[in-house]
Amino acid sequence: MADGLNMSRRIRRTPYTDRVETVGVRGFSVVNHMLLPKAFAPSVEEDYWHLREHVQIWDVSCQRQVQIEGPDAAELVQWMTPRDIGKAKVGDCLYVAITDHNAGLINDPVLLKLADDKFWLSIADSDVLLYAMGLAIGRGLDVEVGEPDVSPLGVQGPKAEDLLAGLFGDAIRDVRFFKFGWINFKGTRQLIARSGYSREGGFEIYLNGGHLGPDLWDAIWEAGQAHNIAPGCPNLISRIEGGLHSYGNEMTRENNPLEIGMEKYCKLDGSIDFVGREALQAIAAKGVTRRIRGIAFDGEPVPTCSRPWPVQVDGKTVGAITSAIWSPRLKRNVGQGMIDRGFWDTGQAVRVCTQDGVERAGEVSDLPFA
Amino acid sequence: MADGLNMSRRIRRTPYTDRVETVGVRGFSVVNHMLLPKAFAPSVEEDYWHLREHVQIWDVSCQRQVQIEGPDAAELVQWMTPRDIGKAKVGDCLYVAITDHNAGLINDPVLLKLADDKFWLSIADSDVLLYAMGLAIGRGLDVEVGEPDVSPLGVQGPKAEDLLAGLFGDAIRDVRFFKFGWINFKGTRQLIARSGYSREGGFEIYLNGGHLGPDLWDAIWEAGQAHNIAPGCPNLISRIEGGLHSYGNEMTRENNPLEIGMEKYCKLDGSIDFVGREALQAIAAKGVTRRIRGIAFDGEPVPTCSRPWPVQVDGKTVGAITSAIWSPRLKRNVGQGMIDRGFWDTGQAVRVCTQDGVERAGEVSDLPFA
Repeated sequence: MADGLNMSRRIRRTPYTDRVETVGVRGFSVVNHMLLPKAFAPSVEEDYWHLREHVQIWDVSCQRQVQIEGPDAAELVQWMTPRDIGKAKVGDCLYVAITDHNAGLINDPVLLKLADDKFWLSIADSDVLLYAMGLAIGRGLDVEVGEPDVSPLGVQGPKAEDLLAGLFGDAIRDVRFFKFGWINFKGTRQLIARSGYSREGGFEIYLNGGHLGPDLWDAIWEAGQAHNIAPGCPNLISRIEGGLHSYGNEMTRENNPLEIGMEKYCKLDGSIDFVGREALQAIAAKGVTRRIRGIAFDGEPVPTCSRPWPVQVDGKTVGAITSAIWSPRLKRNVGQGMIDRGFWDTGQAVRVCTQDGVERAGEVSDLPFA
Repeated sequence: MADGLNMSRRIRRTPYTDRVETVGVRGFSVVNHMLLPKAFAPSVEEDYWHLREHVQIWDVSCQRQVQIEGPDAAELVQWMTPRDIGKAKVGDCLYVAITDHNAGLINDPVLLKLADDKFWLSIADSDVLLYAMGLAIGRGLDVEVGEPDVSPLGVQGPKAEDLLAGLFGDAIRDVRFFKFGWINFKGTRQLIARSGYSREGGFEIYLNGGHLGPDLWDAIWEAGQAHNIAPGCPNLISRIEGGLHSYGNEMTRENNPLEIGMEKYCKLDGSIDFVGREALQAIAAKGVTRRIRGIAFDGEPVPTCSRPWPVQVDGKTVGAITSAIWSPRLKRNVGQGMIDRGFWDTGQAVRVCTQDGVERAGEVSDLPFA
């Protein structure tokens, strides 16, 4: 019980938490001051196999929306990210970096363009709301920045499309990857995106109106019985194998977007202005000194990675693993982490020092893992 | 195990977490993306009685410091809070509200003035760092905003002074309430304040240099043996009885500083400027519509308050309890929450609807509880 989580109002429940408890959640994490389910019976490994074949319902309400609306909304959003949002269309989802003045990463949200003057940033674990408010107030921009009552519910796995098409109509089949459309639910219009924090893919319904949460959960749960639905959550095996990074784990303000492979989402030719542009241009000119890589390594299944694990070559530390788990499919441990220049080539032999004191042999790998 | 906490690097360990685990922590909360111990054997009630008589060592590293330094530091800090910091002296600790443009509460930190151009905000659970950075960047202020490697360690309870005077010298006896001084530890100069999140009082050492954490813990632990030291953490019974509020529990951005009793820390005469001043002046002119109050109420010891509990008068909801616990000393349940105007007088009879479905009789009380 050393890993018990002490509950309070400060750690916010979601519109789905009651349901998640009913179906037997076994643990939570805390993201954006909100509960994120992290384990269901019987195990992460069983969940992983299930996710690859069937469909799961995920309470990802903690992906809070920072809503930026008003005459200067596009200006503020562009100022927050190195990605050129000028050509984004209504209905687009864009993976973007949010940077500080040193080009350090503040978050890596998905940006949804709802209108020319209205955006949502669907955020990872940091208070982007406060950053956006600070920038807007400091610069005197004409925008409203807030957190609407929107709680994403993920439906992930290969059977997600059939399930949701049966429930909401075949139009959702036309929603392409990283685009969003709309469905009707109980007389309300709700945003649905083809997206999600899994390699298996699926949809996320950005439920607007928390009071509808239990009904939406129940509708999907019931329709899902024909598709072997199970409760789930972002699966660590799937995430690491799939090369999906996690803010706070793989990256912090100490890292920049180029280190986590976001080059193609950084417009550095001077045609757009954003916080940290000069710093990022200077980094790009010199080349990054480390970048995120996969590491496959030997030995027994690893313990939970709750602090960086040194990665060494010839006794010298050349990086660190920040997330890792046993892959039952690859029958090896797999991890992600920053590896220094000169040592990041695929196949580079390394030693990994896990926090249980065991040293393991491995090698650098591309992401996603094969 | 439904309340298990899933660990990862994102939920940061502290310089003391290894020690906290050694002495038998039984649960954590997450504050500022960092572990806060929340329970030790045998119980919160035993911890409470111990804290009143002896001395405890608390890992409150999650009280992160937002350091604001540079030519415009004082300007930025003043802009963030309704409290007049113009007369603050080096060595002062000030309880301050941080407000948004609507005068909504973003945080309620302790401000430490280290120099005329250097401040720390010792924060509750929200990313004040990002707000301060946003304001500074947006306004183009000449400041550095960052999170230094500072991890407060609390030494709380009536024997704290004797313990620390024995370890660091009698000079700490001269540090008055909400002032700070300096001690020497292993060749380093460390800040010590007479402060802490308990009614019993004590000191907090703002350890600068996480690598010294285990040594500092061990030194206090060893010296504390003569004083019946025990591991502890912010105690919910002590906190509620003592009228200490918790950001995210008693207050959110939906509340303003006047509602939580910070009138005396709000300078509204126009002599200072801060974010949300006009909004707060308008609220003050009309008078607040609710304010934080104590509620004492009957029945068996209450469950954990993880969502607001309606407080009713004649079947009408007039407020909500946001933190509550059984007081073994008062032999009643005690809580804190916002109560509407017209119903906030001491002694007002109310009904409390706790989340276990039980309705209980009680009355409004002053804070702190007797």
